[in-house]
Amino acid sequence: MSTVAYENLDKLKSFAELKRAARVELRSVLESDADRRVGAYSAPITTGMAFNYAAKAVDDTSLGLMHRLAEEAQLLEKYWALLNGEVMNTGEQRMVLHHLTRGKIGEGITANGRRLQQFYREQHERVFAFAERVHTGEIAGSTGKQFETVVQIGIGGSDLGPRAMFHALENIVVHNYGEQPLQARFISNVDPDDAAAVLAKLNPETTLFVLVSKSGTTQETLTNEAFVLDALEQSSIPGLQPRKHVVAVTSETSPLANSSEYLDAFYIDDYIGGRYSSTSPVGSVVLSLAFGPSIVQQFLDGAHAADQATFDSSIDHNAALLDALIGIYERNVLGCSATAVLPYSQALSRFPAHLQQLDMESNGKRVNRFGQPLNYHTGPLVFGEPGTNGQHSFYQLLHQGTDIIPMQFIGFRRSQLQQDLEFEGSSSQRKLNANLVAQIVAFAVGQDHEDANKAFPGARPSSLIHADRLTPQALGALLSHFENKVMFQGFVWNINSFDQEGVQLGKILTKRILSQEAGGGAAIEALRRLLAV
Amino acid sequence: MSTVAYENLDKLKSFAELKRAARVELRSVLESDADRRVGAYSAPITTGMAFNYAAKAVDDTSLGLMHRLAEEAQLLEKYWALLNGEVMNTGEQRMVLHHLTRGKIGEGITANGRRLQQFYREQHERVFAFAERVHTGEIAGSTGKQFETVVQIGIGGSDLGPRAMFHALENIVVHNYGEQPLQARFISNVDPDDAAAVLAKLNPETTLFVLVSKSGTTQETLTNEAFVLDALEQSSIPGLQPRKHVVAVTSETSPLANSSEYLDAFYIDDYIGGRYSSTSPVGSVVLSLAFGPSIVQQFLDGAHAADQATFDSSIDHNAALLDALIGIYERNVLGCSATAVLPYSQALSRFPAHLQQLDMESNGKRVNRFGQPLNYHTGPLVFGEPGTNGQHSFYQLLHQGTDIIPMQFIGFRRSQLQQDLEFEGSSSQRKLNANLVAQIVAFAVGQDHEDANKAFPGARPSSLIHADRLTPQALGALLSHFENKVMFQGFVWNINSFDQEGVQLGKILTKRILSQEAGGGAAIEALRRLLAV
Repeated sequence: MSTVAYENLDKLKSFAELKRAARVELRSVLESDADRRVGAYSAPITTGMAFNYAAKAVDDTSLGLMHRLAEEAQLLEKYWALLNGEVMNTGEQRMVLHHLTRGKIGEGITANGRRLQQFYREQHERVFAFAERVHTGEIAGSTGKQFETVVQIGIGGSDLGPRAMFHALENIVVHNYGEQPLQARFISNVDPDDAAAVLAKLNPETTLFVLVSKSGTTQETLTNEAFVLDALEQSSIPGLQPRKHVVAVTSETSPLANSSEYLDAFYIDDYIGGRYSSTSPVGSVVLSLAFGPSIVQQFLDGAHAADQATFDSSIDHNAALLDALIGIYERNVLGCSATAVLPYSQALSRFPAHLQQLDMESNGKRVNRFGQPLNYHTGPLVFGEPGTNGQHSFYQLLHQGTDIIPMQFIGFRRSQLQQDLEFEGSSSQRKLNANLVAQIVAFAVGQDHEDANKAFPGARPSSLIHADRLTPQALGALLSHFENKVMFQGFVWNINSFDQEGVQLGKILTKRILSQEAGGGAAIEALRRLLAV
Repeated sequence: MSTVAYENLDKLKSFAELKRAARVELRSVLESDADRRVGAYSAPITTGMAFNYAAKAVDDTSLGLMHRLAEEAQLLEKYWALLNGEVMNTGEQRMVLHHLTRGKIGEGITANGRRLQQFYREQHERVFAFAERVHTGEIAGSTGKQFETVVQIGIGGSDLGPRAMFHALENIVVHNYGEQPLQARFISNVDPDDAAAVLAKLNPETTLFVLVSKSGTTQETLTNEAFVLDALEQSSIPGLQPRKHVVAVTSETSPLANSSEYLDAFYIDDYIGGRYSSTSPVGSVVLSLAFGPSIVQQFLDGAHAADQATFDSSIDHNAALLDALIGIYERNVLGCSATAVLPYSQALSRFPAHLQQLDMESNGKRVNRFGQPLNYHTGPLVFGEPGTNGQHSFYQLLHQGTDIIPMQFIGFRRSQLQQDLEFEGSSSQRKLNANLVAQIVAFAVGQDHEDANKAFPGARPSSLIHADRLTPQALGALLSHFENKVMFQGFVWNINSFDQEGVQLGKILTKRILSQEAGGGAAIEALRRLLAV
């Protein structure tokens, strides 16, 4: 056990001081001190990628107090404790080891006599070898045809992260490496229209399904597996063996493990939370099949590089730590209840949905890690859509609404596909980024106007993560940055960011309804009639 | 001019009384009074579709006060005034006539001597005739090949609504009518990767583009038009005439109108706001091409039916009005700053993104319709993802987070595709709806537990819109319901829900950056270097 202390946020002296500190006049300081702020208020995430917080409502005084808060709350010590295998998931009494799936840290950690980093690496190696054999055709469909499409069946962390990563890489991989080895699709919802619509466009003979459920008991995923297997049976293709078109990603103790009926199985364990599992086989199987192992290795390396940058004990250079602390300041001092994630990159169109799960499922908690109710706010609502699309949608409220919603912009100097056109004096990429810069300034500085309807109050804070281009490494670093930010915020709030007890009651009531058990209660009996269940 | 009075919400006596009224103990009343609430707290939207608010934190007393608020604020009178052509978009001095695009009300309204309802109907008739000629092959590509794909180029209201409607209808149309006449794609973002990725998968000879911009000056849309035309030129296909693959949807006064270089053009006008334009040619061109005119007519009829239900002067039977008032109660009395939209239907996966624009761009305002700053909250943050997916993502925070976020569920008794499987005693559709019912009860009633980490505080209010099946009519009714809800809320807040001045400053600054004008300010100069603009 480590010697770190776990205190509630409102017990910390530095937090009390941060609340008393003078508020920053963002409207004026961003203009009056622009060069210094944009230059100095920047921290590296990995080579060529940085977190810039010049347009956040902070100054040297408040940043100094955040530095003290980080020390008083022992945030880096807690990160080290986590990496050293301390039981950080206190509710479920588990270690939290997703960083080890990148394959480069936590070598000494063992469970049941097994070195876990080595175990995770071996699984990736098995995944890579499997993908290569599929790509060469050595492993083929049960009727002898080469696989052309991979379909991930999973929900929550087994869907949102891998799906966001797939969409982020799809175009750049095709551009740089030619055709994708396999096309990819996803089935997640228990709504039968989801699976039916995906299956309608597939050839069963050339499709490989990846069934992802750590516990092997997820209702939606097992239902969709049955749905898919039934559809394959119904196709009546001579010689087709449906289960030989399925690989499982699960834990070794799950009902799905070691089923000789599947084509193969790859393993994770209880130390990898679903929403933190994109760098485990939960993500690496579908991504290796779709893009090839070398792309996935670059993605893992990017995540590791950002993990390493997060060791930096100087807050000024620790992007994830800074991002976390500024978010705490906005949530618990400025009183903001939501955060918008706004990637100026079409490839990141589903990245906000992943962050929504990562952040809200991790930190949407009302008790501390010891199970005691808290009397301060924890995780904010997280939402977003890609810019410039959002500008023509909800930005109206962000600019002129009655609540202040802090923002996190993400931008890249170059596009992924490098196909562009000069039109009216500028390329599309330049227009995209000009819009991004204009929004940061419009939100922060605002504009006076004699017509109040055309006035912009400004003082809307935003940060900017920027890099040259959205490559597999950059994507891995971006993923890790937010994982580590969320982790640090959980430490500050003194909560357990790694369980999700809030999903249990719905599961119990659903089972009660489906089993027609009595005792569901009057509300269930009255409501079920409306939906014929 | 009508005789309605426009007062701020905090001047209304009924609002003061509503604030003083006793709060409802949702945890207990939903169970103790389940049958009566589920039966009585329901209002029809259209035949077979209803808005149920049994699990909202309201009772007969607060509903009675809301009824008085509706009368005191003259909400129905304002709806009539809008339908009668009063200048409701006060900032831009325009009428608000999207209801007329359904083709059945507002017959007498004229502008510049033209009867507008007739004009909108004529445009739909032109759209329908055009679509039919495309489907028969009478209108074909410039090299003589039949069109196979339609691509909508538009952003904001020219993208989100039509795209959400397309995804909602795609599967049910294929199931009921066989193959779609044309496949559909969408290009919106100025990010060149958006257009490049869509174009990479198209055959220029068989693709028809729909260029949608009311003003004809939208930067992103004109840029993407140029991008597409350039790509078609570059394809060097003998005989290909790129502009003969483009139809425009625009206003008659725009630079795009009457260009003989386009294949055709269809018209809207300034009385149809972008986010309210899905039932105008902004939506009907792409939907008629993709699905055929009869589907679009059913969609329009559904929207009209819900418009009509909104005339009901008894609040108890006026779903849009009730939904609006309950939202006001949650925002301005209970102090909730966000609303989640949670459709238990994969087909509605992009409907929350449309509602996000509709609501946040309409009501994210800080001045009243006379341009005076307000001292109460207006439009909430709106977000959502389909259930059951969201259950495995952000529902943790909804159940156990420190803020209460009211919810709007949407569910259907039957799936769209009617392909289903009994697995472990129930069909997928039944599992889907069992989850929905379970969530409503879990959120409202909660659960005590000796371990506070496993306790659910409950008292999380939600409504349920339910219908038999998501048909084109049902979709039209759903669209109209939310348009009318947002309209009524704008009336209550005494704001102009039909302009969007908050998008202007970003546009001005973007132009300044792109033109390399001096005087952009120090912040712009410092930030543009980060993104090489």
